[in-house]
Amino acid sequence: MSTIIAVETSDVRFPTSRELDGSDAMNSDPDYSAAYVRVVSDSGDGHEGHGFVFTIGRGNDVETAAITALTPHLLGRNVEELLADMGATYKEFINDSQLRWLGPEKGAMHMAIGAVVNALWDLKAKRAGLPLWQLLGTMSPEELVNLVDFRYLSDALTPGEALEILSRAEPGREERTAALLAGGYPGYTTSPGWLGYSDEKLDRLAREAVAAGFKQIKLKVGAILADDVRRLRTARAAVGPDIKIAVDANQRWDVAEAIEWMGQLAPFDIAWIEEPTSPDDILGHAAIARGVAPIPVATGEHVQNRVVFKQLLQAKALQVLQIDAARVGGVNENVAILLLAAKFGVRVCPHAGGVGLCEAVQHLSMFDYVAVSGSMDGRMIEFVDHLHEHFVTPVEVHGGQYWPPSAPGAGSEMRPASIAEFTFPRGRFWREDAQAQAAQDAGKVLV
Amino acid sequence: MSTIIAVETSDVRFPTSRELDGSDAMNSDPDYSAAYVRVVSDSGDGHEGHGFVFTIGRGNDVETAAITALTPHLLGRNVEELLADMGATYKEFINDSQLRWLGPEKGAMHMAIGAVVNALWDLKAKRAGLPLWQLLGTMSPEELVNLVDFRYLSDALTPGEALEILSRAEPGREERTAALLAGGYPGYTTSPGWLGYSDEKLDRLAREAVAAGFKQIKLKVGAILADDVRRLRTARAAVGPDIKIAVDANQRWDVAEAIEWMGQLAPFDIAWIEEPTSPDDILGHAAIARGVAPIPVATGEHVQNRVVFKQLLQAKALQVLQIDAARVGGVNENVAILLLAAKFGVRVCPHAGGVGLCEAVQHLSMFDYVAVSGSMDGRMIEFVDHLHEHFVTPVEVHGGQYWPPSAPGAGSEMRPASIAEFTFPRGRFWREDAQAQAAQDAGKVLV
Repeated sequence: MSTIIAVETSDVRFPTSRELDGSDAMNSDPDYSAAYVRVVSDSGDGHEGHGFVFTIGRGNDVETAAITALTPHLLGRNVEELLADMGATYKEFINDSQLRWLGPEKGAMHMAIGAVVNALWDLKAKRAGLPLWQLLGTMSPEELVNLVDFRYLSDALTPGEALEILSRAEPGREERTAALLAGGYPGYTTSPGWLGYSDEKLDRLAREAVAAGFKQIKLKVGAILADDVRRLRTARAAVGPDIKIAVDANQRWDVAEAIEWMGQLAPFDIAWIEEPTSPDDILGHAAIARGVAPIPVATGEHVQNRVVFKQLLQAKALQVLQIDAARVGGVNENVAILLLAAKFGVRVCPHAGGVGLCEAVQHLSMFDYVAVSGSMDGRMIEFVDHLHEHFVTPVEVHGGQYWPPSAPGAGSEMRPASIAEFTFPRGRFWREDAQAQAAQDAGKVLV
Repeated sequence: MSTIIAVETSDVRFPTSRELDGSDAMNSDPDYSAAYVRVVSDSGDGHEGHGFVFTIGRGNDVETAAITALTPHLLGRNVEELLADMGATYKEFINDSQLRWLGPEKGAMHMAIGAVVNALWDLKAKRAGLPLWQLLGTMSPEELVNLVDFRYLSDALTPGEALEILSRAEPGREERTAALLAGGYPGYTTSPGWLGYSDEKLDRLAREAVAAGFKQIKLKVGAILADDVRRLRTARAAVGPDIKIAVDANQRWDVAEAIEWMGQLAPFDIAWIEEPTSPDDILGHAAIARGVAPIPVATGEHVQNRVVFKQLLQAKALQVLQIDAARVGGVNENVAILLLAAKFGVRVCPHAGGVGLCEAVQHLSMFDYVAVSGSMDGRMIEFVDHLHEHFVTPVEVHGGQYWPPSAPGAGSEMRPASIAEFTFPRGRFWREDAQAQAAQDAGKVLV
């Protein structure tokens, strides 16, 4: 028997905007950040639950406030009870009748719920001595169905259908686990393609990506058409005809513009067009999918919840579904989304990068392979080689493959030294940065 | 020339849950609250801008944090510049490239943007010496078009089409203003219909509503079918056959359940079914609309932004569009939504009630009548007789009609004494409440 005695939040920000890492058509100067939560109990076993919301700088403080608003659901609660029925625990958060008004199930509040739910999964996996993907892979189909909130889903996926999908995959779990441990899970990389990079840097990084074993790279597009054409020519020349190139417009276009623009990029053999328009525009994505076929449409990193994913699938608006570990209501809602994708026969290629998203989302893809879709066909996890050094168990990616994590937990635990250094605005880095800025400003005044 | 010198936020909460006012199938115990913002300049003219996010209790602190995250866009800025081009000002908020990650344009962060945008409109109207509805009604069609962000709308509404709608309505503005001043704007009331009220209270309040001149009342439904049937029978008997009765399920149902349930309520001659399912479920609303026809489907109070309203209209998913003054990105986004409704020929019947929503949203309906749709046919504004006494210029509703406000501003200014008393947790009311609670708890321990 143990009790939650502390829920600690930290506003951690990395100064990534200084290098234009992460720059795209909508996000010009991101400072990759984490609204970080640590759940501590009095169990004495040393296990803590760690989770986070990923943001890109300003607003990270709003997310820490949103996480703090959830602490009454945690402090003083019995840990074994919370972890024993994670379906009920998750529903308690999303059904808080007052907090629900801030969504429902979307935006800052919902992302905070995801962080807390994921922190509890991290704790549960550590207590079980298993990495999250394996913990989920040991749960029975019935237990997995109980994780899902089927409210608003029943016109597309019933509990019975979910059970059928999971039961069908059950006999092959051991065999696929062995295959995963032996061969890893495919990755692709976005590292070459940020919009702020020069053509020379793009060329160099694209060649390095191929040499590193990646079979797909991704380029940011959508700012200036002529630039996109030139950069795609550079990239295609660098990687040759056998490597796939996806493009990502980061919500830049309206419907007609997306179809027109992609008409110009189609000659470069595009693997998918990602986020062509607003993540809220289901009917818009459906029109774009019809207009750019056979180029597949991909979206999901900004899709707010399972209800929007359901409709994107119902409307045939996407051909590649991109889950994100830190946007929806945590592992539970992502299990629902994986089940929806399996029901509709759509492949899942997670969004990752940012801070800790690779570390977290790999567990969901590996679980999907082992126990849900049972397939790796056309599936791959995004990889960006940033900020992994700040995590206690950083991803292992080599030969273009993600290698299954073996450490117990959900991969979301950040190193205490990194949290201390990059906490905003009082950590060492930001304090010194403010001093340097002040000195520079004083210098300007003197001149 | 003046400068913004202070942006003050307050977490104001009213203890409405004690009386079950506002109780419905999803919101069992709301404490109607406002995350309140006051924008102060050094102009010396005494004019301030006031705005708020409406919430139902917990989470109001998250909204004040979200408003605080916006203050760098305000402090030190030139007021005349900000107010002169409210289209550009609004776009600056929604396009903050880092804050955008928390939405985009949805949830806690977007609601906070709405509060700040509305506070600036309040200030602009006060400076112009006009109530907001009249200020908007004096702007040219071109100026009004410039308020709108057409991103993600162009497949349904172009700037040219918006200009055409506004230009068509322009010649009749004066005549309709006179009609509005002489006859008011229709209201309907939800006061009788809260789920927590007894049948006797429902019967009494329904009769009072008819006596007060209302032509429509609304009942909360969706918890227990037998109760809904009994309550509708009571209400229909109380109001007679000529008064309309709408019902509101507050997102309680899945698609099939909504259609089935409404089949049971149809005999009571239902004016509309409101929020039958998730506000995110465009395709679900469309299926329900087909399934319950000819009963109109109404939704909007939780619809996050113009992109979702666009699709609800494109999919014929709603027949009654319910704008809300404090959910989307303020007056600017509501102008876009009114234009979309006019384009698709759908009537607008605003959501109101809560704290200050009646005071705020009446301006938008009156502006719509004067300068956009040019019609009151089938249109009416929700009225709930709660908490108006806390506002400097409370609504005037009598004879079942809203009477056009004449005081300069947007109606959103709360009385300083109310803010002081109900600020959470340190205002007088909550301080004394905590003391009373502590005394009661101490008593329990002694027993």
